[in-house]
Amino acid sequence: MTNTNDLLTRGVKEIVVKKNLEKALVSRKRLRVKLGLDPNIPDLHLGHAFNLRKLRAFQDLGHTAVLIIGDYTATIGDPSGKDKSREALDATITRANGKLFLEQIFKILDQSKTEVRSNSEWFSKMNFLEILDLASKISMEHILSHETFRQRISRHQPFFLHETFYPLMQGYDSVMVRADIELGALEQKFNLLTGRRLQRAFGQKEQDVIMTDYLLGLDGKEKMSKSLGNFISLRDSATEMFGKIMSIPDSAICHYFEMCTDMSESEIKEFSKQIKAGEGKAVKIKLAHQIIKIYHSAGKASQAEQEFEAVFSQNQIPDKIYEHSFGAKKISIIGALIESGMIKSRSEARRLIEQGGVKIDGEKVSDENTVVNLSRSKVLQVGKRRFLRITK
Amino acid sequence: MTNTNDLLTRGVKEIVVKKNLEKALVSRKRLRVKLGLDPNIPDLHLGHAFNLRKLRAFQDLGHTAVLIIGDYTATIGDPSGKDKSREALDATITRANGKLFLEQIFKILDQSKTEVRSNSEWFSKMNFLEILDLASKISMEHILSHETFRQRISRHQPFFLHETFYPLMQGYDSVMVRADIELGALEQKFNLLTGRRLQRAFGQKEQDVIMTDYLLGLDGKEKMSKSLGNFISLRDSATEMFGKIMSIPDSAICHYFEMCTDMSESEIKEFSKQIKAGEGKAVKIKLAHQIIKIYHSAGKASQAEQEFEAVFSQNQIPDKIYEHSFGAKKISIIGALIESGMIKSRSEARRLIEQGGVKIDGEKVSDENTVVNLSRSKVLQVGKRRFLRITK
Repeated sequence: MTNTNDLLTRGVKEIVVKKNLEKALVSRKRLRVKLGLDPNIPDLHLGHAFNLRKLRAFQDLGHTAVLIIGDYTATIGDPSGKDKSREALDATITRANGKLFLEQIFKILDQSKTEVRSNSEWFSKMNFLEILDLASKISMEHILSHETFRQRISRHQPFFLHETFYPLMQGYDSVMVRADIELGALEQKFNLLTGRRLQRAFGQKEQDVIMTDYLLGLDGKEKMSKSLGNFISLRDSATEMFGKIMSIPDSAICHYFEMCTDMSESEIKEFSKQIKAGEGKAVKIKLAHQIIKIYHSAGKASQAEQEFEAVFSQNQIPDKIYEHSFGAKKISIIGALIESGMIKSRSEARRLIEQGGVKIDGEKVSDENTVVNLSRSKVLQVGKRRFLRITK
Repeated sequence: MTNTNDLLTRGVKEIVVKKNLEKALVSRKRLRVKLGLDPNIPDLHLGHAFNLRKLRAFQDLGHTAVLIIGDYTATIGDPSGKDKSREALDATITRANGKLFLEQIFKILDQSKTEVRSNSEWFSKMNFLEILDLASKISMEHILSHETFRQRISRHQPFFLHETFYPLMQGYDSVMVRADIELGALEQKFNLLTGRRLQRAFGQKEQDVIMTDYLLGLDGKEKMSKSLGNFISLRDSATEMFGKIMSIPDSAICHYFEMCTDMSESEIKEFSKQIKAGEGKAVKIKLAHQIIKIYHSAGKASQAEQEFEAVFSQNQIPDKIYEHSFGAKKISIIGALIESGMIKSRSEARRLIEQGGVKIDGEKVSDENTVVNLSRSKVLQVGKRRFLRITK
C-alpha cells in the first residue's frame, strides 16, 4: 500500500485540497501527518486500524507520523453524526485508556518514527482567558454550518454549548503540532476543516485533509464500533480474531480485504470470483491469515486456524447450518436451548450442560446460568451432531 | 427611595419573579442582592449610578449588597444589544479599572455593608475541563434564543463563539455568590435569566431579577454612555457636574430627577409644571444641587453654582442664544469661529484669541490650535456680548 496512488485512493472518500497534497507528496519535503484517536474506550479495533495503517504508509514514505491521544477531547466526545449529547467522561478514565492505546498503536506504527502527543499537554495548561481567545477565532456562522449541529437544532435534539468546543479542540491540536496533513473519517469533515480555519487564524499554513471510509462490523451491516459489539479489538488474541473473522458474512469479505489488508485490487477481484463460486469459507481463512499476521504473526495465524479447525471442522459443523434469531441481545443458555427447539425441557437442558454436552462456538458450557451475548452470531452445539447458528 | 414600593417601581421595567420577590422582601430574611459592573472603562457614570443607588436602598433595608467587579466578563464585553463583536480587552486593563471603580462605588454604597467580589476570583482558577462542564449546563437552544444572537445570525453580522460565554459567566457569578436577587438593565435580561438557569443546574434556589430602565445622556436623546461622550462621570468635580447638568435639554430634566435623585414623584410633577412655565434654568439648578450633594456635598454644590454663575450669568449669556451645528464631532477653534460666521477671517480669529477675546463655556481660549470637542454642546463667546451655542 506504499505507492502514492493507493495512498490517496484506497478507502479514501474525499481530499481537501487534493492538488496541494499531491504537490507536497512529490516535493520530497518531510510532512507532518496527524491522526487523532480519542481514548474514550480502552480498545482500538480494526476500524481505527485503517487510518493507523494509512499513517504507517506515510511513515514508510519517510514522513513523520504525529499521533494525538485525545485525552481531553475524549471527555466531551465527538458530536459528529450523533443525535444526542453524551455524558462527559472523567479525565482519569481517558488518561488510563490513553496508556492502553499505545501498545495497540505500535502493532501498526513504527514507534521510532512516531511523535505521540496527548492533547491534555496543551489543554490542561490553558486558562479561561486563553480559552476565550481560542473561541474568539471561530464564528458562530461556522459552528452552525455543522450538519450535525444544524440537525440537532432543527429536530430539537439535545445539544449543549460544550459540544461546540469539540471541533475547536480537534482543530487546535493541528495548530499545536503544525500538521501538514490530517487523516480522519469522512464524518469528521467539519472538525478537520475547522483545523484548517484555526491554522489560518494562527498564521500557519493550512493542513490538507484526507477523509476516509469506515469499516463495516462483523455483522457486515453497521459501522464497526465498540458500542454495537461488532468489533475485532487490536487486543484480541489470534484465536479470537480468527473466530470473529470466520463469522463475517460472505458479502463483507472483499470489503475487509480492501480495508484491513495489503492485498492488491486484482487479488481482491480474484477472491470475489471465488466467493461467488461458493468458496467463501476458504477465502475467509485467507483473510484471517492476512489480518492476524499484522497484529500477531503468520505463525500465530496458522496456529489459530488449526485450533479453529480442531473445534469446528473436526466436530463436523456442516457448511450449511440452520439459524435461529431471538430478537434480543442476550439470552440465558437454557432459554436459548429451549426457545430454539433444540431441547424440550429445562431439566434436560441442565443435565446436558452438566454432562458437558453443550458448546458455544466449540467451547463447553459448564455453568447453567451462562448468559449468551448475541451481539454477533454464535454456533450452539448439542451433542456431537446438532448445530444451530444463533443470532439476536 | 427606601420604601418598598418605590424600590420595585421607580425606573423598574420588569421583575422576574415579582411574587417571589415581594414575598422575600416581607419575610425579614436578609437577602443577597447582586449587581455586576464590568470595568471595561475607568469611569462609572450616572447611568451606572442608578442601579448602585437601587442597591444602596436594599442596604438601607438591611440586605447584603454583593457587588461583582466583572474583570473577567469585561474582557469579552456584554454582547447584549450590540450588532458586532468587540475586540477582547486585556485583563491587566480590566483589573486596573476595577480598582478605580471602588472609590466611585463607595460614593453611593455603604462600604461596611458591601461584599465586593471580582469574578477573576473564580474564573482565573477554572481549568478547561471545569469550563467545559459549565458550558455543558447550557443548551444551544437557550443560547440561540438570545435576541441579540438571533439578530446577528439572521443579519450575517459578526458573532464569535466566545461571545456565547458572556451570559454564562454573568450567570455563574450568581451561582458563586448565591444571589437571591440580581439587579440589571433590561437589555441584560438574557444574562440575568441565564443566572437563574445555572443556579437551578447547580442545585440552588433561583434568583429573582429586577430589570431597570437606562438613563438618557446629556443630549437627552441617546443612552448615557462613555463611547457617545454624553456622560457625567462619578469622578467629575462638582464644577464639571454642574456645567454638564446645566447643558441638558429641558425635556430631560424630569427624567434625571426620576433616575438620579431621591425627589418624590409629586415634587417631580411640580418641577414639570415649572419647566413648562419657562423656569427650566431654575429647575435645572435644583437638579444639579440634588445630584452633586450625592457625589460631593451640598456645600460643593453651592460653590459650583456660584462659579457657574460667575462665569456664565455675570457674562450675561442671554437665556435664548443662537445655535450652530457643524456635522462633525470635533472642529478647530478657528474653523468654528469662521464656519459659524462669528468672525470673517483667520487672521482676525487669531488676533482675537491672542487678545483673550474668545471663550468656550466661559473659559478663555489661549491656544489658536485648540480643537473643540462637540460631543456635547458648548457656548462659544466672542468679546463680551456675542454668544453662540455650538453642537456637532
